[in-house]
Amino acid sequence: MEQNKRIPESTISRLNVYLRELIALAEMKIKRISSAELGERTNLSDAQIRKDLNYFGSFGKSGVGYDVKELISSLKRILGRNETWNIAVIGAGSLGSALMKYPGFKKQSLNLCAAFDIDPKKINKEINKIPIYGLDKLARVIRDKKISICVIAVPQTKGREIADKVVKTGIKCILNFTPVSLNVPEDVVVRNVDLSGELEILTYFLVR
Amino acid sequence: MEQNKRIPESTISRLNVYLRELIALAEMKIKRISSAELGERTNLSDAQIRKDLNYFGSFGKSGVGYDVKELISSLKRILGRNETWNIAVIGAGSLGSALMKYPGFKKQSLNLCAAFDIDPKKINKEINKIPIYGLDKLARVIRDKKISICVIAVPQTKGREIADKVVKTGIKCILNFTPVSLNVPEDVVVRNVDLSGELEILTYFLVR
Repeated sequence: MEQNKRIPESTISRLNVYLRELIALAEMKIKRISSAELGERTNLSDAQIRKDLNYFGSFGKSGVGYDVKELISSLKRILGRNETWNIAVIGAGSLGSALMKYPGFKKQSLNLCAAFDIDPKKINKEINKIPIYGLDKLARVIRDKKISICVIAVPQTKGREIADKVVKTGIKCILNFTPVSLNVPEDVVVRNVDLSGELEILTYFLVR
Repeated sequence: MEQNKRIPESTISRLNVYLRELIALAEMKIKRISSAELGERTNLSDAQIRKDLNYFGSFGKSGVGYDVKELISSLKRILGRNETWNIAVIGAGSLGSALMKYPGFKKQSLNLCAAFDIDPKKINKEINKIPIYGLDKLARVIRDKKISICVIAVPQTKGREIADKVVKTGIKCILNFTPVSLNVPEDVVVRNVDLSGELEILTYFLVR
């Protein structure tokens, strides 16, 4: 994992934005695009785009731009999008249930296929055809269903306890919706989505 | 808005993290804390903390640390947390409904109090006691309920159209859940939460 430590997560995040835009361009039968045009479409500078792509090799030619299909294919490879990744949600409360119904979590490369809860009323039910298991089945289901990513959508007070359980199963990627910062081993990657934190950032601008 | 343009949003985001941790410390009757200790509790360096706070003045004394209550009070003022801000959600689908049930959107300074949809089956209903209005009532309800922040939770294809409508009402703060980048005037602040984008960032690490 040495190499990716030097690549900022913000770069990875922007590569996703470029890929999404390039796919839209391919659908419009556009074959070539300059970094300036791609920058305009994504509200980013062409220098930023070139810098982000440079981490992964040389793409495009000066004065000619990028071959849209080629760049899509390279970005898909870089971003691990040629495979399908199985995902589990821990916590089938209002947020967890919404994620189970969220179309963005069930597409080509992302397959949300299991949920876990401790509420006996929820266990063995389904939401959007996704089965809900008891938390005691965590390790077994993660192994049997070959799950690679766990989404933590439990109440704040349970965040760290659940993260510990998840890490013990060998999971290396966590999407954390609780506002607590998780303590995980170095080889585990955590992305945090702090929904009320996002609103609180906006209130800063309201008092300026 | 000149001053805040120089302050990175990541700093504002961390100020929220410090504030949350300081409130927890105050609840434990802790009166003073050094930047090193605060750093340890938030997984950040003490240099980062000092740098972030320095944007807003001088807090704490070398060798003595920060007065917890004083710093809480300063951060609340800086972050606009002494007031209550009214929030509306546009889109009462599965994500919008989950946000309406999400406890983090109804607390001291955040008051999610209106939702909008175009589905006649949803209009004039309530979710978690929050009324759902027709989208044609947007401008009137935003004015009458003194709403300051709009959360956009509509399907991707409608994101830009809804953002235009929201901007026209005079709203200056938007939390955008669609994966499209919105084109808004310079004086409008947008925070983007791209849920499937977050998972896609994780798949990058899975192929390393």
